[in-house]
Amino acid sequence: QWMMLDWKPKRPDMLGGPFGFGRIVQDGLVFRENFSIRSYEIGADRTASIETLMNHLQETALNHVKSVGLLGDGFGSTPEMAKRNLIWVVSKMQVLVDRYPTWGDVVQVDTWVAASGKNGMRRDWLVRDCKTGDVITRASSLWVMMNKETRRLSKIPDEVRAEIEGYYLDSPPIVDEDGRKLPKLDDKTAKYIRTGLTPRWSDLDVNQHVNNVKYIGWILESAPLPILESHELAAMTLEYRRECRKDSVVQSLTSVLGSGVGDMAISGYVECQHLLRLEDGAEIVKGRTVWRPKYANRIGSMGQLPAAGA
Amino acid sequence: QWMMLDWKPKRPDMLGGPFGFGRIVQDGLVFRENFSIRSYEIGADRTASIETLMNHLQETALNHVKSVGLLGDGFGSTPEMAKRNLIWVVSKMQVLVDRYPTWGDVVQVDTWVAASGKNGMRRDWLVRDCKTGDVITRASSLWVMMNKETRRLSKIPDEVRAEIEGYYLDSPPIVDEDGRKLPKLDDKTAKYIRTGLTPRWSDLDVNQHVNNVKYIGWILESAPLPILESHELAAMTLEYRRECRKDSVVQSLTSVLGSGVGDMAISGYVECQHLLRLEDGAEIVKGRTVWRPKYANRIGSMGQLPAAGA
Repeated sequence: QWMMLDWKPKRPDMLGGPFGFGRIVQDGLVFRENFSIRSYEIGADRTASIETLMNHLQETALNHVKSVGLLGDGFGSTPEMAKRNLIWVVSKMQVLVDRYPTWGDVVQVDTWVAASGKNGMRRDWLVRDCKTGDVITRASSLWVMMNKETRRLSKIPDEVRAEIEGYYLDSPPIVDEDGRKLPKLDDKTAKYIRTGLTPRWSDLDVNQHVNNVKYIGWILESAPLPILESHELAAMTLEYRRECRKDSVVQSLTSVLGSGVGDMAISGYVECQHLLRLEDGAEIVKGRTVWRPKYANRIGSMGQLPAAGA
Repeated sequence: QWMMLDWKPKRPDMLGGPFGFGRIVQDGLVFRENFSIRSYEIGADRTASIETLMNHLQETALNHVKSVGLLGDGFGSTPEMAKRNLIWVVSKMQVLVDRYPTWGDVVQVDTWVAASGKNGMRRDWLVRDCKTGDVITRASSLWVMMNKETRRLSKIPDEVRAEIEGYYLDSPPIVDEDGRKLPKLDDKTAKYIRTGLTPRWSDLDVNQHVNNVKYIGWILESAPLPILESHELAAMTLEYRRECRKDSVVQSLTSVLGSGVGDMAISGYVECQHLLRLEDGAEIVKGRTVWRPKYANRIGSMGQLPAAGA
């Protein structure tokens, strides 16, 4: 389920305490939590994976909501949302990664929410390297309200708005919205296709849905290995369209823009388009990724990131 | 690669510090580290998965080695091991889980090493619920030395023994060794078979091998869903036989002992046997698992755990 705000009954004794639990800063509107990167959170490159990073964003968002006491039924709804069977679902996520931390690094994640149009909410994150203070990741996400039973989108009821708007931070998005339309990939336009992807038992969350972070792994399943081996993910835009359940069979499609994989060494940055779909063609996630040559950021090339409104 | 001791150059400023880094206790022979369970470490049951638990064991082992400064080339070898191209590989792992923690719980992991025969090392772990002090998990593992280039097992050279034996804790295994031979499963004796399992990019460690914790996910892939849904893993014995690489295609075989899945509701505990093998039949991991009905431990039935020498 799409990074749904989901938590257990509040345990005030666990909050605001020692390292690892986070706290409210900045007039009560920003929640901050530190994470030390663990050995099992790094991959073949010795750096934290994009999934790890997304997990830290999710954890901070959940602890933020928990810490302000805005919980209803234990399933991510405020009390007024719970009365109406409403839940939050993420519709769009944009992430810019300047540098990936490595084992033993400590990152500081700040998160806050803001209004987004009439019936949406935005949640932003700013991730710093604790040692240097450098910003290493920025992310922005859009959320809409859904009825848990009918699975249909809903307006934000006034009573819910009254609960949450006091927590809105009046600020522009930390990542400019990438408004470019994501083209629809199909078997003809996508050069790289992985079929038959199924959730593992351990991919399921408490709702027996696939957690949205797992989708990223599936998207990367169809990314060409030469890109994974020589490049690192610099920017990602994901649009979530549909839920994936434990018996879903998923196809992952990728197309590489421009001159493609063969020309990578010359072109430097590579842009890809992605689609996760069910076997009947129904879209689960559409996405765009930008990749930079590994180690490029060590020579200060981040300023040239060509996409995603950095 | 089998939970290989692998680390970066020591950064003394990161050790022994705040929550999350661990410290040496008990005369310098036991290393202790606390973990708060994060939202993305829990699964469909709202409890930490067995993979999460194994990740915490791995992290604590690595930080233990790091903290005593016993590092050679950055690949898990002491200086004398590095000179000889030797690495540690795990050959056997036994885990007993009394209770799985949930999101927000804090667990305290103690680990230490001991001699094991002439050419092996044992590493044990004791995991407590920080709040109650209850022991919730015990684990014991056996390690042997391997030549990194030839991939052949090696004796422990005297120079290496001199480096490490000062850290040995003279204590019996925290889990009695389960000496029962694991039978060889095949297509006839295993009722449940999953084929075509391949590593995801994110399953690879810094050596481009599959991390041993990932094997557990593959083993569970062939466990019958009714067991996963109604039971929880209470005990596990794994014997590691061979490495798995990024282009390996793996088959997961499971057989359920006794009356099988149909009788679960009556029998209570269920025992399974497992095999991960390559398509040519070569064995990667053999295993035995014991499952108890979910929530059984809440009524204090742990004392009846029928296997693995608890």
